[in-house]
Amino acid sequence: MTRSANGKIDRVVWAAVRESRPLTLCLTNFVTVTDCANAVLAVGGSPVMSLDVDDARELAAVSASAVLNIGTVCPDQLAAMLGAGRAARAAGRPVVLDPVGAGATRVRMDACMRILDEVGPSIVRGNASEILALEAHSARRGVSRQRGVDADGSEARSEIENAARSLSERFGCVVAVSGETDVLAHGQMLSALTGGSELLTRVTGTGCMLSAVVACCAGALPDKLFSAAVAAMNAMKLAGAGAESKLGVPGSVGEFRYRLCDELAEIVSS
Amino acid sequence: MTRSANGKIDRVVWAAVRESRPLTLCLTNFVTVTDCANAVLAVGGSPVMSLDVDDARELAAVSASAVLNIGTVCPDQLAAMLGAGRAARAAGRPVVLDPVGAGATRVRMDACMRILDEVGPSIVRGNASEILALEAHSARRGVSRQRGVDADGSEARSEIENAARSLSERFGCVVAVSGETDVLAHGQMLSALTGGSELLTRVTGTGCMLSAVVACCAGALPDKLFSAAVAAMNAMKLAGAGAESKLGVPGSVGEFRYRLCDELAEIVSS
Amino acid sequence: MTRSANGKIDRVVWAAVRESRPLTLCLTNFVTVTDCANAVLAVGGSPVMSLDVDDARELAAVSASAVLNIGTVCPDQLAAMLGAGRAARAAGRPVVLDPVGAGATRVRMDACMRILDEVGPSIVRGNASEILALEAHSARRGVSRQRGVDADGSEARSEIENAARSLSERFGCVVAVSGETDVLAHGQMLSALTGGSELLTRVTGTGCMLSAVVACCAGALPDKLFSAAVAAMNAMKLAGAGAESKLGVPGSVGEFRYRLCDELAEIVSS
Repeated sequence: MTRSANGKIDRVVWAAVRESRPLTLCLTNFVTVTDCANAVLAVGGSPVMSLDVDDARELAAVSASAVLNIGTVCPDQLAAMLGAGRAARAAGRPVVLDPVGAGATRVRMDACMRILDEVGPSIVRGNASEILALEAHSARRGVSRQRGVDADGSEARSEIENAARSLSERFGCVVAVSGETDVLAHGQMLSALTGGSELLTRVTGTGCMLSAVVACCAGALPDKLFSAAVAAMNAMKLAGAGAESKLGVPGSVGEFRYRLCDELAEIVSS
Repeated sequence: MTRSANGKIDRVVWAAVRESRPLTLCLTNFVTVTDCANAVLAVGGSPVMSLDVDDARELAAVSASAVLNIGTVCPDQLAAMLGAGRAARAAGRPVVLDPVGAGATRVRMDACMRILDEVGPSIVRGNASEILALEAHSARRGVSRQRGVDADGSEARSEIENAARSLSERFGCVVAVSGETDVLAHGQMLSALTGGSELLTRVTGTGCMLSAVVACCAGALPDKLFSAAVAAMNAMKLAGAGAESKLGVPGSVGEFRYRLCDELAEIVSS
Repeated sequence: MTRSANGKIDRVVWAAVRESRPLTLCLTNFVTVTDCANAVLAVGGSPVMSLDVDDARELAAVSASAVLNIGTVCPDQLAAMLGAGRAARAAGRPVVLDPVGAGATRVRMDACMRILDEVGPSIVRGNASEILALEAHSARRGVSRQRGVDADGSEARSEIENAARSLSERFGCVVAVSGETDVLAHGQMLSALTGGSELLTRVTGTGCMLSAVVACCAGALPDKLFSAAVAAMNAMKLAGAGAESKLGVPGSVGEFRYRLCDELAEIVSS
């Protein structure tokens, strides 16, 4: 277990993002899509969104990476995700899966399983409830039920690490779990990130933004996916802490929300 | 006619919301969905959104309540609303209808009538133009035409009260009409709420946010729907007035918009 | 070539908008739809959105104008755009096309060509990469490829002017190209607008907002489309510059984003 504080590697990631300005294809839910676009812009990427299977497939072929976020998935969007996801992987581009509410409904779990099986994402980024649900389901150990799309908050750290490691081995991908402590696993590698802000859980979209930023970083450094994911997760923790510390009115979620992208922009350019 | 200023009942409602953190299923338009999510989070609920009929039905079965907002309804979304709405009602959960622009098109009126007839919402929350249009249409007195989705503003208070009462009796639901003065009707009960801010009409989404907050409160107190609706409407009026009073730049809609959720959070937790 | 600084004509446009409060039908992408609604409200119009072909057609018949923005177009939405666009034109109402990412995929170019051929928009508002791609494609000179939805930034001013003029002549419409210098062409008329803010390119949605505001102005002055477009483009440049100049934290995109609508409101009411 290493604690990540490797500023040097993070700087390599952000330099690569600045240099290549990765075109990041976001097939994402309609609740937080604006925030995802602004987060990718803030860190220096170029976001592009699509709802159409042919359009998404074309875009995947020219994008640096893609994020598939199932927060409001429906059959047409799943088709676009599978088509674009396969096109991206065929072109050697990283794909990030955000399994929003995977444990809440059969529809969501089925969508995740099809993406895991048919696309083979490079990175899975979710909260603890989602990762535990995915792990339990794919291990055929029954479904760990989730209430809505938010994390339960009661999961033990060791339980999260074991699930992340197991899921990473089963699907050969980086698994990145955000929470009070972030946990990242890839094969034998395991990292934990502390810090951040409790306010990140009090506005919608910070998890989705994080997945989009992870995809942006992965697009810039497709051969260093673990480092890319760590840098992105670390930046969001730092941005959350930075935004909270600068609030004129302590606890203001409205102010926090508009400061978050500014903090991201500052962190990645310094 | 009672004027609501019953701080005590409102506090009961918000205590119930804090205690149960109601999972609030929002089947809502794509214009203001982010704001709806943030409003539900601000008052202490847990929002979940969906675009898929099966997913929505599954979520309805485990949610505390649902809001059906027809602001950008299309056939697939209407199917999800009918399926999830019926599932919620079958499980004894309150359902809120927001008839956005009901008087503007036949498509919108038909969607509202199907939801009223096939789901039987517990609460209808709209502006005066929408409520008058619904009442006129369901009484087969012809359609009161509405221009777009905004209220006309010319309706007389007595006209609004009569329409709210009549609609409430016809469909056996609470009818909550927001405007310069809010009017709520349920059977023999009638309440009026004054206050608020004119700025609430100058940003998009405040009516949609209100309906989502009404649903959240109804989910926490399903046996006291009238009180739940009054508390929610009252909180939005207070939040509007509070946000306006704190603006650094008088009249700034941008600042008003980000302060609104903070005010909601403060009001419901005090 | 005239440089626009015609404050007098701009004031005529905004007076017409304030007087008629144009109902502006926005068939637009799901990434920036909230911002489009708030921009139309800020300048004094009344926005209405739709995803359904019948609903959109009904709304087009009573709206002052429509904007068709293909940023996340899919077959159902294209059908709504074609139906509503034709209904608007048949009723003599101006239609604005925003060809988001036209040069990035075949799907987007095909959608634009169908709208150009079957609807006949009154105004096309895009960035330089989009306008050059449309011009090259419609002249059957092959496709000028675009990376994602952002402008390339390398296009020469004369190249942009020639493309705008050529596209304007081919389709008999106003062509409005936003960029560091905005270029507007209609028949023999050519205008250029300087000023603005680089921050307009660092948040998502400012181009989409601009197209919605252009549509709002065109709805208020359907017989003076060139002046309407110039006034709208000019207002966005002034709002960008004004918002940037008032930032508490220089370069803050979060603050810029919420100030932009306030600046629009102030400019158009003065």
